[in-house]
Amino acid sequence: MKLPRTPTMRRMPTYLHRLLRMQAAGEEWISCAELAAYMNIPHILVRKDVAMTGLRGNRRYGFRVNELIDAILRFVGWDCPATATLVGAGALGTALLGFSDFATYHFSITSVFDSDPAKIGREIHGFPIYDIAEIRWRLKHFSPKIGILCVPAVGAQLTSDILVSLGIRYIWNFANVCLQVPPGVIVQREVIAGGLAVLSAKIKQMEAGEAATEGEDE
Amino acid sequence: MKLPRTPTMRRMPTYLHRLLRMQAAGEEWISCAELAAYMNIPHILVRKDVAMTGLRGNRRYGFRVNELIDAILRFVGWDCPATATLVGAGALGTALLGFSDFATYHFSITSVFDSDPAKIGREIHGFPIYDIAEIRWRLKHFSPKIGILCVPAVGAQLTSDILVSLGIRYIWNFANVCLQVPPGVIVQREVIAGGLAVLSAKIKQMEAGEAATEGEDE
Repeated sequence: MKLPRTPTMRRMPTYLHRLLRMQAAGEEWISCAELAAYMNIPHILVRKDVAMTGLRGNRRYGFRVNELIDAILRFVGWDCPATATLVGAGALGTALLGFSDFATYHFSITSVFDSDPAKIGREIHGFPIYDIAEIRWRLKHFSPKIGILCVPAVGAQLTSDILVSLGIRYIWNFANVCLQVPPGVIVQREVIAGGLAVLSAKIKQMEAGEAATEGEDE
Repeated sequence: MKLPRTPTMRRMPTYLHRLLRMQAAGEEWISCAELAAYMNIPHILVRKDVAMTGLRGNRRYGFRVNELIDAILRFVGWDCPATATLVGAGALGTALLGFSDFATYHFSITSVFDSDPAKIGREIHGFPIYDIAEIRWRLKHFSPKIGILCVPAVGAQLTSDILVSLGIRYIWNFANVCLQVPPGVIVQREVIAGGLAVLSAKIKQMEAGEAATEGEDE
């Protein structure tokens, strides 16, 4: 199976977020046009994305909110629970610990590690912060599937090596460095500044007197 | 001018980060192959990306590190200084305030606002936190080009409306909501969970016994 394109996958949390709010409000049907208008992206993009989930809509009413939520969860692989360990309880790590949508993805952070004595033993958003020096024996208890790296760039490779040595094969990397990992280990790297690069290029274009591409970018 | 594809723009900060470290180490030349190996992406992608900047390399040695840095800064629009105001000094806002690479983009946050009395008047990473209620007169002094939204989803549209009414035309939105803005205003939205969706889909594929696409995804 070839994976769907990354922009499609990246839009899924936004669809889901919107659909869950509609579900909570008791709404039953949603059309691609409504989702497209909300996200300010072309209708056809939403239609293609939704088609990828395999759900067939009703010609007249669109899609049932409940069914589309389930289809997206299945499509992304969020229909089964997954757990993660988070290393680095700084500002970014704290932001992730407080991210309330994870629960709707059946995704949960079950352990948090840091090397800062001022943080170890404290709690952040209800999560106790463990000493990174204890990660080898502690992770045996939690056996998470995913490792989330929120450490400074300088310590990221070492932390990644430790996680991999403990059997973690999936890493969500927020550190500002590209990790070298053995074959079979998958790294998803987040580049916070990537969005600023996209925005800056649009600003440059706008200020050169040309209309920037409107709407959300692919 | 048609904007380069988003994946190309998103890779620019990573190239830049690597090149600046090489520059600091006194290295003079870089090849596309070296950048590709570092980022674990196909050589051809790097070659296309670098070609977009307009820089011509040396057949034998590749590109001069200094020249490629300048070419990337120009290409992204980071050759001129830009300033921003940040609204919402929570965990994510704090992470952005501490992001050290902004300086190399000639990008600077010059004012920070929050509505939390516990934060107003304090300093985070050397930035004084102003009361959001004072934003109308305070922003006249700073006149930032970009507004960075790190507020909770529920307050994001109102904050966006205020920024737009104060003349801000570019918004970098980290709130978990799609903003409705008038024509001519550009919003770059960051979906933190987007990367998790990409990773989760790869995990699903791996665990179904199929090899996931290796390397960094487009």
